[in-house]
Amino acid sequence: MDRYLMISSDGHAGLQPQHYRDYVDARYHDAFDAALAEQIAVTDDNARKFFVKDFNERWRQGIEQKLTGAWDSDQRLEVIDADGVVGEVLFPDGITEMNAPPFGAGLGLKPWGVEPELQWAGARAHNRWLADFCSLAPERRIGIAIVPALYDVDAAVEETHRAHQAGMRGILIPALWGDYPAYHHPRYEPLWAACQDLGMVVHTHSGPTPDYEDLPGMMGIYLTEFVFWAARPLWVLIFGGVFERFPRLKFAVTEVSEFHLPAMLELMEIRASKKHTSGKLGNFREHLSMEPSEYFARNCWIGASLLDPLGISRRHQIGVGNMMWGTDYPHPEGLWPNTAARLQDFKGLPPSELEPLFGLNAVECYGLDLDALLPIAKRIGPPRSLFGTAEA
Amino acid sequence: MDRYLMISSDGHAGLQPQHYRDYVDARYHDAFDAALAEQIAVTDDNARKFFVKDFNERWRQGIEQKLTGAWDSDQRLEVIDADGVVGEVLFPDGITEMNAPPFGAGLGLKPWGVEPELQWAGARAHNRWLADFCSLAPERRIGIAIVPALYDVDAAVEETHRAHQAGMRGILIPALWGDYPAYHHPRYEPLWAACQDLGMVVHTHSGPTPDYEDLPGMMGIYLTEFVFWAARPLWVLIFGGVFERFPRLKFAVTEVSEFHLPAMLELMEIRASKKHTSGKLGNFREHLSMEPSEYFARNCWIGASLLDPLGISRRHQIGVGNMMWGTDYPHPEGLWPNTAARLQDFKGLPPSELEPLFGLNAVECYGLDLDALLPIAKRIGPPRSLFGTAEA
Repeated sequence: MDRYLMISSDGHAGLQPQHYRDYVDARYHDAFDAALAEQIAVTDDNARKFFVKDFNERWRQGIEQKLTGAWDSDQRLEVIDADGVVGEVLFPDGITEMNAPPFGAGLGLKPWGVEPELQWAGARAHNRWLADFCSLAPERRIGIAIVPALYDVDAAVEETHRAHQAGMRGILIPALWGDYPAYHHPRYEPLWAACQDLGMVVHTHSGPTPDYEDLPGMMGIYLTEFVFWAARPLWVLIFGGVFERFPRLKFAVTEVSEFHLPAMLELMEIRASKKHTSGKLGNFREHLSMEPSEYFARNCWIGASLLDPLGISRRHQIGVGNMMWGTDYPHPEGLWPNTAARLQDFKGLPPSELEPLFGLNAVECYGLDLDALLPIAKRIGPPRSLFGTAEA
Repeated sequence: MDRYLMISSDGHAGLQPQHYRDYVDARYHDAFDAALAEQIAVTDDNARKFFVKDFNERWRQGIEQKLTGAWDSDQRLEVIDADGVVGEVLFPDGITEMNAPPFGAGLGLKPWGVEPELQWAGARAHNRWLADFCSLAPERRIGIAIVPALYDVDAAVEETHRAHQAGMRGILIPALWGDYPAYHHPRYEPLWAACQDLGMVVHTHSGPTPDYEDLPGMMGIYLTEFVFWAARPLWVLIFGGVFERFPRLKFAVTEVSEFHLPAMLELMEIRASKKHTSGKLGNFREHLSMEPSEYFARNCWIGASLLDPLGISRRHQIGVGNMMWGTDYPHPEGLWPNTAARLQDFKGLPPSELEPLFGLNAVECYGLDLDALLPIAKRIGPPRSLFGTAEA
């Protein structure tokens, strides 16, 4: 084939807030109506305070119709076809701040300032809608169910089974656990067992951090450390022995600043080496049979959705087999609508690296049907000749 | 001179717990007596749980007498003379877990699980003792006063003045602020103003992190992320504009894993660049006139006490002018008692780098009296010929 198979590891889809009502259990409709007004007010307030509105409105000019692919199936297919993207992993929060599921059940999924029961109601509403949305193009949509796993692990297991039956291929768990136990606690093991058995990929997605005071500098602090909060589950799961006990569990961290990730992996590896420095802390890895880098290579994937030249240059430190390209459509920080131009950054990489990065790693991670995907790639994928390297 | 001036940017000194009683205000003696038994029990419990005891007891065999330099002035001078060290920056917590000041006023200085009033009482007790200890060799001891700055900034300013009058040259503030405002909050400005005016260097020291559950993997998680918690004040102060408003304020972070620090600095610098990625977050640096790296270069120092070949190799990314060598005596993870052997790692570096790294940066940072120090260096410092590079 003279084209590449492109799977975006990071797409966002979701209804406009008011339209989630139809998917929320009727007994939460009053709560939904009350929360909706507040959700919209907070969104407006944040947009004004953090200058988001200006930037987003400017960015959206002229592409308003294409952005409705966040919830409109036909529009989305048109957009990704034009973009050369065959399939997409679908997280919540379509058009950045405008499409979050109700009750704090969006990408951030923070376990504070919310009612757990309501957050669950919001998550289930989104999952119902997303299952419908995915069923309209099942081979091209990799649905990720929202699972607020912290409060009630039985409910999380149940929702994971339901999502699997509905055709979804993974779950999104909160990146931050607040005052709840971290993810190496035994209480979560039924969830890891279910995900391992069903082949459901567990995800965190960057974005959430602790709350900051509204002071000058807040956004610089946020930007510097959000990658820490997004990547933190990696060392909790690795050192906590979760991949030791669940060797087939798959974990993906998405939009995690690839240029910085090698530093995190190096840190884990150096700390795990039994240096004099850590000697006084005793044997902290007797429950592990492998090196941190080995668990990472075997069990972890990176949804590398904002790959730039610096991130690409560090691909061997992360592992070409563990990175999955993505566009982040329809978020403004993503590649879209400049995907074609940004593919220039990959010029000169050999097909043996581009194939896994662009699509085959995602096929493996999510267990996708290659026979269904290749004919679409043949029609819309970017030509191999674009990258100036010989065909494999 | 044919020897180098060595100033250790990281030394630890403190009384054995029971001996702090004489330095605690009499009205806290009952509380002290009650807390002492618990402090010793917790220490024993931690030592047993985390295997520290075995390692430390083995490590201490044969050097028991030399370790008493943690509180014995003559013994300390004997040790550092033999070590080639002319002067030392003195933090609390002498022999690791055995010499913490009372009431949680030690290196960790966590603002939770303590009574603020008592933590202050413990801090003042240590500061009184340390002032006495420093006065026994004033040109060789750079005392750092403990200032639990979070609760009462007026008290922090007052203690900083008192410490300055007593001859100390810096303050240690909590690395973690818990539920209190972070350090770019206006409430701390009187403290930064006082430190700038008095030339008191503000410090955080690595070690403290949030509390973890006692589960397997806990120590691997701790080891991977303690550097984040130690370095976090850097981007809070930089992006928060503290060095914009206090251009002569000096801030030192000690034992912060030099091999990893360049990744943090790169992260700040990339985030501060107005890339498309961060565009939707608005103008988050309109209050800053300089780049993060410029504030770091001008206002920040690194107490690089565990320099190994990897950390040394990254010195240019950090800035040779911002790193201060140290031994961490008498902590077991430090260079001592293998200081001479570990100096081999610096072989081949030119004098123009070794001079600032080993001592001159500390002279500048703390405003030390070079005339008083050089004669001692001439007597005990390591010969320049050791490093195989020509004399400057």
